[in-house]
Amino acid sequence: MSYPISHKMSTLKPSVIREILKYSSDPNVISFAAGNPASETFPVEKIAAITADILQKDPTAALQYSLSEGYPALRTTLERWLAQDYGIDFSENTLLITSGAQQGIDLVTKCLCDEGDTVLVEKPTFIGALNTFRSYGVQLAPVELEDDGLSLASLRSAWEGAHNPRFLYIIPTFQNPSGVVTSLQKRQAILDFARAHDLLILEDNPYGDLRIDGEPVPTIKSLDRGGDRVIYLGSFSKILAPALRVGFVVARDELASKLAVAKQTTDVHSNSLAQIICNEFLTRWDVNEHIARLQATYRKKAQTMCEAIDRYLGGKVTYRKPQGGLFLWCTLPDEIDMLDFCERCVKAGLALVPGSAFYTDESQPCHSFRVNYSTPSDEEIVKGVQIMAEIVKTFA
Amino acid sequence: MSYPISHKMSTLKPSVIREILKYSSDPNVISFAAGNPASETFPVEKIAAITADILQKDPTAALQYSLSEGYPALRTTLERWLAQDYGIDFSENTLLITSGAQQGIDLVTKCLCDEGDTVLVEKPTFIGALNTFRSYGVQLAPVELEDDGLSLASLRSAWEGAHNPRFLYIIPTFQNPSGVVTSLQKRQAILDFARAHDLLILEDNPYGDLRIDGEPVPTIKSLDRGGDRVIYLGSFSKILAPALRVGFVVARDELASKLAVAKQTTDVHSNSLAQIICNEFLTRWDVNEHIARLQATYRKKAQTMCEAIDRYLGGKVTYRKPQGGLFLWCTLPDEIDMLDFCERCVKAGLALVPGSAFYTDESQPCHSFRVNYSTPSDEEIVKGVQIMAEIVKTFA
Repeated sequence: MSYPISHKMSTLKPSVIREILKYSSDPNVISFAAGNPASETFPVEKIAAITADILQKDPTAALQYSLSEGYPALRTTLERWLAQDYGIDFSENTLLITSGAQQGIDLVTKCLCDEGDTVLVEKPTFIGALNTFRSYGVQLAPVELEDDGLSLASLRSAWEGAHNPRFLYIIPTFQNPSGVVTSLQKRQAILDFARAHDLLILEDNPYGDLRIDGEPVPTIKSLDRGGDRVIYLGSFSKILAPALRVGFVVARDELASKLAVAKQTTDVHSNSLAQIICNEFLTRWDVNEHIARLQATYRKKAQTMCEAIDRYLGGKVTYRKPQGGLFLWCTLPDEIDMLDFCERCVKAGLALVPGSAFYTDESQPCHSFRVNYSTPSDEEIVKGVQIMAEIVKTFA
Repeated sequence: MSYPISHKMSTLKPSVIREILKYSSDPNVISFAAGNPASETFPVEKIAAITADILQKDPTAALQYSLSEGYPALRTTLERWLAQDYGIDFSENTLLITSGAQQGIDLVTKCLCDEGDTVLVEKPTFIGALNTFRSYGVQLAPVELEDDGLSLASLRSAWEGAHNPRFLYIIPTFQNPSGVVTSLQKRQAILDFARAHDLLILEDNPYGDLRIDGEPVPTIKSLDRGGDRVIYLGSFSKILAPALRVGFVVARDELASKLAVAKQTTDVHSNSLAQIICNEFLTRWDVNEHIARLQATYRKKAQTMCEAIDRYLGGKVTYRKPQGGLFLWCTLPDEIDMLDFCERCVKAGLALVPGSAFYTDESQPCHSFRVNYSTPSDEEIVKGVQIMAEIVKTFA
């Protein structure tokens, strides 16, 4: 039979990236396509020690129904950390635990958007966010991205052309997929624009701790005195382990209470054992020491990737030198068709994501592709780049 | 500032039960209000042993990003179990893992309902489901409940009066809150009605294994040959531990693929460690032995509750003798106002949920209340019933 699929969901199609990731499960295919953190960075022994402790000392806390807002001790620990290290003001803001930052995107969209309303997004941006917005029947208005963050002129014109613009979704630090870091000046200008035009900002910061070069830039949330304009999303996926599915959202109290109701109707609460693991990890050990180790790992991987590209593809591919995050955004000469290039690569044993997958309109021309350097080994990085170089030659 | 809350979410109010549950956290208040399984039934040592094993042998499986559809081994194990013990046919159906059955309700509603469409529900029914439906701007059409399941005449008239009726949400076994078990004859009649009127059925079965009396009745899903009419929800919350947040949905393949896309946009995938714990629990030990122990625990608790009510409230309260589940549905004489009664009880140290909380329209008159017997200890059960008896006297 054919099912009466809702309008908002019927328009949501599986994306190009899903098709490519199917190849990635082939052990003969090297994947530069995923966004997985490096498995070797997971602090397995510490997680095992914490888990054994919890299940011995307070199994009910880990196993019985709990609060939709999240495990109280973790919320307190995170508030302290975010206030101290990220300058976030909690006087009129509340932190809620979510099942990954993805759920934060979902709940914020559900609470703020009716079908037909508009969300402004960077072009390109995170596919998972685009699909969540689409799943609520929301219109997407792309804003051009420059080397120091989005174009303010493009933001203005996107806003002017939008029906009920509800919020701007932005990843200001080590943007996925572009790697762009929005400058402090632009962060302030974006916040000023939002204030002047009654627009909200959804700041997604999954990669912020993974800096491998340069100086930290304050979050937009920390610039937002009063905290009523910016909704902030964070996650343990990249700094601890993604399969724990623990993220968090910080929003002004009156919005947070609505998000908590939405959370309750969605999955009651997030897995408690995982929340306790996150809390114990933050309180028992020095998280900054752990983050420094992650940064060293990714600095080395990024360097290996850049060196291999310079060596095998020098002059043929341009890319933005990464300051952090997990990705390189590479661009090929205009005469190379990107879908054709990515298809030839995957057939030769290398999975890549074509840049158009990160556009609101996938049919738009794009001469870039995204390369992930956190998942592959050093050997795979070099071999993958060699495959890319071979395929580029076939276009000569 | 005031936030532009979406139409669907702005109409969702915190329910009466949430207000009452606030009192429940007071250690001096005995709670008959919750729906928690008994913490003493959690197989803590087994969960600890499994967890230690996983984190030693295959930490990446427990910690790295995984598939939205769920941990493959758990899906296989569940399909085998459901086919063998529940007669569910998987030839054209797919099982997906969800973050509790609550997320199954959420995803099904999101995929099948546009705002203004109608969901038919039993009257009374599970508040968490009602709030999920409300959170998508769906209209609710209540169907009267009788001792052997919903009224077929009421089902017909609810369907006739409904705008775009999409599905019937039903808990046919040990219904929450009423404890009703839908008879086999009515299950077949409901399925026939759904077939004749192009209606889908969302069968929620969280309590099915907790039988304490009488003979099992087949699930509606097992009666649905071809499996295209019934979407089935199950959960580990009541048979293993709720804070794992592992449930599952079984649907015809074409609908399941849509649900998987919705799942991906919501939380990417459910916590992996919890999924592996569920799978190992089902494969390493005899789950039926574990379920028999749960049944013995709840049989004893239900008996204690019924005996206390008979002793202290005999002739004043009528109730349906439970065949399973976690609840008693009690009814008081018409002259006692239920909200007043529950308020007086909570002030005297006993939290109860007034029956109207389980109605689509909470303002409708209701002379019943729900009593949970799984959470309180034997002593608390007796003491709580004594408080009820005292309060009933104040209405004389």
